[in-house]
Amino acid sequence: MTVGEIARIVNGKVIGNDTLEIKGISGIKEAQEGDLTFIANRKYLSLLQSTKASAVLVSPDICNSVPATLIQVENPSLAFAQIVSFVGPEPIAFQPGIHPTAIIGPNVRLGKDVSIQPYAVIEDYAVIGDRCVIGAGVYIGHYTILGNDCVIYPQVVMRERIKIGNRVIVHSGTVIGDDGFGYATVRGVHHKIPQIGTVEIDDDVEIGSNVTIDRARFDKTYIGRGVKIDNLVQIAHNVTIGENTIVVAQVGISGSTSIGRNVIIAGQVGIIGHLTIGDNVIIGGKAGVTKDIPPDTHVTGFPAREKWEDMRFQAYLRKQPAILERLKKLEERVAELETRLREKDGQSPKDP
Amino acid sequence: MTVGEIARIVNGKVIGNDTLEIKGISGIKEAQEGDLTFIANRKYLSLLQSTKASAVLVSPDICNSVPATLIQVENPSLAFAQIVSFVGPEPIAFQPGIHPTAIIGPNVRLGKDVSIQPYAVIEDYAVIGDRCVIGAGVYIGHYTILGNDCVIYPQVVMRERIKIGNRVIVHSGTVIGDDGFGYATVRGVHHKIPQIGTVEIDDDVEIGSNVTIDRARFDKTYIGRGVKIDNLVQIAHNVTIGENTIVVAQVGISGSTSIGRNVIIAGQVGIIGHLTIGDNVIIGGKAGVTKDIPPDTHVTGFPAREKWEDMRFQAYLRKQPAILERLKKLEERVAELETRLREKDGQSPKDP
Amino acid sequence: MTVGEIARIVNGKVIGNDTLEIKGISGIKEAQEGDLTFIANRKYLSLLQSTKASAVLVSPDICNSVPATLIQVENPSLAFAQIVSFVGPEPIAFQPGIHPTAIIGPNVRLGKDVSIQPYAVIEDYAVIGDRCVIGAGVYIGHYTILGNDCVIYPQVVMRERIKIGNRVIVHSGTVIGDDGFGYATVRGVHHKIPQIGTVEIDDDVEIGSNVTIDRARFDKTYIGRGVKIDNLVQIAHNVTIGENTIVVAQVGISGSTSIGRNVIIAGQVGIIGHLTIGDNVIIGGKAGVTKDIPPDTHVTGFPAREKWEDMRFQAYLRKQPAILERLKKLEERVAELETRLREKDGQSPKDP
Repeated sequence: MTVGEIARIVNGKVIGNDTLEIKGISGIKEAQEGDLTFIANRKYLSLLQSTKASAVLVSPDICNSVPATLIQVENPSLAFAQIVSFVGPEPIAFQPGIHPTAIIGPNVRLGKDVSIQPYAVIEDYAVIGDRCVIGAGVYIGHYTILGNDCVIYPQVVMRERIKIGNRVIVHSGTVIGDDGFGYATVRGVHHKIPQIGTVEIDDDVEIGSNVTIDRARFDKTYIGRGVKIDNLVQIAHNVTIGENTIVVAQVGISGSTSIGRNVIIAGQVGIIGHLTIGDNVIIGGKAGVTKDIPPDTHVTGFPAREKWEDMRFQAYLRKQPAILERLKKLEERVAELETRLREKDGQSPKDP
Repeated sequence: MTVGEIARIVNGKVIGNDTLEIKGISGIKEAQEGDLTFIANRKYLSLLQSTKASAVLVSPDICNSVPATLIQVENPSLAFAQIVSFVGPEPIAFQPGIHPTAIIGPNVRLGKDVSIQPYAVIEDYAVIGDRCVIGAGVYIGHYTILGNDCVIYPQVVMRERIKIGNRVIVHSGTVIGDDGFGYATVRGVHHKIPQIGTVEIDDDVEIGSNVTIDRARFDKTYIGRGVKIDNLVQIAHNVTIGENTIVVAQVGISGSTSIGRNVIIAGQVGIIGHLTIGDNVIIGGKAGVTKDIPPDTHVTGFPAREKWEDMRFQAYLRKQPAILERLKKLEERVAELETRLREKDGQSPKDP
Repeated sequence: MTVGEIARIVNGKVIGNDTLEIKGISGIKEAQEGDLTFIANRKYLSLLQSTKASAVLVSPDICNSVPATLIQVENPSLAFAQIVSFVGPEPIAFQPGIHPTAIIGPNVRLGKDVSIQPYAVIEDYAVIGDRCVIGAGVYIGHYTILGNDCVIYPQVVMRERIKIGNRVIVHSGTVIGDDGFGYATVRGVHHKIPQIGTVEIDDDVEIGSNVTIDRARFDKTYIGRGVKIDNLVQIAHNVTIGENTIVVAQVGISGSTSIGRNVIIAGQVGIIGHLTIGDNVIIGGKAGVTKDIPPDTHVTGFPAREKWEDMRFQAYLRKQPAILERLKKLEERVAELETRLREKDGQSPKDP
């Protein structure tokens, strides 16, 4: 493909040689001659000078004179994604149809053109929307409902009475709708509290591998439209997550906590139960959130506090050696003063 | 159901209107008119005034005059759990019997009224107790023994020679008895140390989803009676956990560590190997435990120390800005003293 | 077996009674009379005096006069591992052959003496090397290639186009080659970036249970020869890990980070993306790595810094109470000096 052809696909403007042939795609650091790459973030602009890539997708405000040919587009990441799917290997196609080994309960409703792979088990009264792909060995419980165009990768488990929207992707090994963790403790013995609620997952959600999303004690655990969840995340009973929030790998969100929209929760964050996290909040990696967070706040650390506050706090802590040094000097100066004053007292006529 | 009927079920005493009709159940914050709710913890008592619930299960010492009707019971959580299972949707019933697609090894012993779901694989010499439910796609290894009344959810893996007690519940995706992580390193190359021990899980244990419990190097990894383990927990080889201990999500316990009874380990805690954690210990969320903990201790932080000590330590750290301020003032005062003393020296007749 | 027979197997030298009969094997602390145990680490040498074991495998430089008989060997761990596999229960043998329920795609190539267990699904064009064991319910995607002598435990998922070396062991529930976590965000909405790369895993790698290893955005995620990965680890897209590195449970490594050879990453560590971690680095448990780490460095803490630096920093922090005490005393002494100087001024003839 030539740079010109690429520019036409992504609706971009070429600055440089549009007859250049592109042979591969790559990240800006790893790119070799013949590669197309992109810059999504201004902080990588300096790499434009050193990249070996032949062409770079950039935003329209970038027209540096660099060795590489530039293709200006509104959103370089998105344009790159388009080209990637264009040049990448053909995605694996699962043929529509129900594999003869799939076990479909008696009252299941299957949409048009579904693909049910080997050894999938779909329990009674479940509903599978049009064009869904249900991977090998997937388990879908009684009364669970999937919208249209979902892709459920091999060995996902969805328990009973779950509701899944349209275009939801769930990766392998993920468990949706297992019991929330709740007990009534009587004299040291823990009695299970039935978890009779459910899980509802809205449209366009993607969920990584080996994630666990517990069903609610009552009512529902809710994942809003467009939320993206990475691998090995734990979402406890009755949690709600607002639209377009990002949850990075190994995060744990405790019971009944409510997360706003467009929140970013970085890796290994822990959030205690019954909190309210506002819209547009950013929670830094490994933070431990112990209090409500107002909207539009960036928090870090454990206990999590506003990032500027945490940084200032950390900076203060780093002054400890200097403090000790200053304290020691001051003690010497005071001792010296005391000595001199005592000497003076010796000289003083009125001193006893 | 009326409040009176509910009170009869849970053996409670009504303070208010016992003919009131209850239409739903809910948490105290989310409750609407017509709902039954409960208060398990005195710190939520203030919500009694504002809740919209029509009736509230409370402990016998609570008789506030509030809008809602109260039902006094010994243990409100437990009573609520009873009602929940009463009014909740009928639990999914897996019919007894062996699905024709289940693969049962030649010397397997199956108890009475077991339910073996599709595509379960039960290897040779395994023993499944009476009334056990073995979910779809579950794998049970050679010589593994389950007691009576266990519920093993879809896609659990139990490797060979594991021993499981009675009434044990294991949620989907959990792996019990995979090899412990042990190598002998010779000139940088790691040679696998065979893990020939096993895992033993006592009665009434519940284990969440996608948990991993490693088999012992020799002897056994042991989970005591009544222990409750949340999702995504890692339990390494030769760990032992005492009766009724609670292990919250994403905790990691390293090899050969011994945990006492009635311990509470909050989310994302890490515990290094070869430690002894006493009975009734509480370990706060995200703590990193690096030393033995004596019984009846509440620890937090990383490295974990006693909670009061950690709080005092954190409080000290927060004084850093004040310390800097005080230090600066003190330096100024000392400089002032020095100046004045120098002036005095100038005035002094005996000064050289 | 006698001590003498054991010594012959491990090529060791007996110090003591070589006709002693060994009835069991155990850790040095738990050992009983009749047991064989070992000491791998000099810091456990003191246990030699108190162990009840009848015989102990030790390194050649140890010849203390202790109650137990010693067997000197070059590598006691390795020797012990040999004996363990000798005396342990017969490992579970999966007979070679393809279970009739396994589903093998039309163009799959199977090596000699493979064992394909029930309900395994091997997609079109996959290649399985000689003597591989593919456990029950394992899913192997299109075009995925396994070398010889691999053991893939039940319910592992490997997606399409993955490449696995020889003698690789993968434990249950692990997912290899699911999509990396990448989106292009346009006005708050996250658009999936196709992940068209792959995962390549070199010879002699062992991967624990419920691990997730994402496929690359382009190019590959790479796990080097001899790497050992514990349970519940997250390895993001385009990560590379060098030879013989150890990754302990619940570690998370973010996208495009490059880890050197012979690195040790302890439990629950988090590493942000796009970093370079040098060879022979040690990263302490729960550390949060936010910067590149040069080779041969031991780091701890969050943010991770060199261990000595972190320890010194922690030691400084612990001086906070003492600092406050010293500061208070100093303030009193300065106040006292000021008072006395003021008194002196009162006595001074020249004072106004």
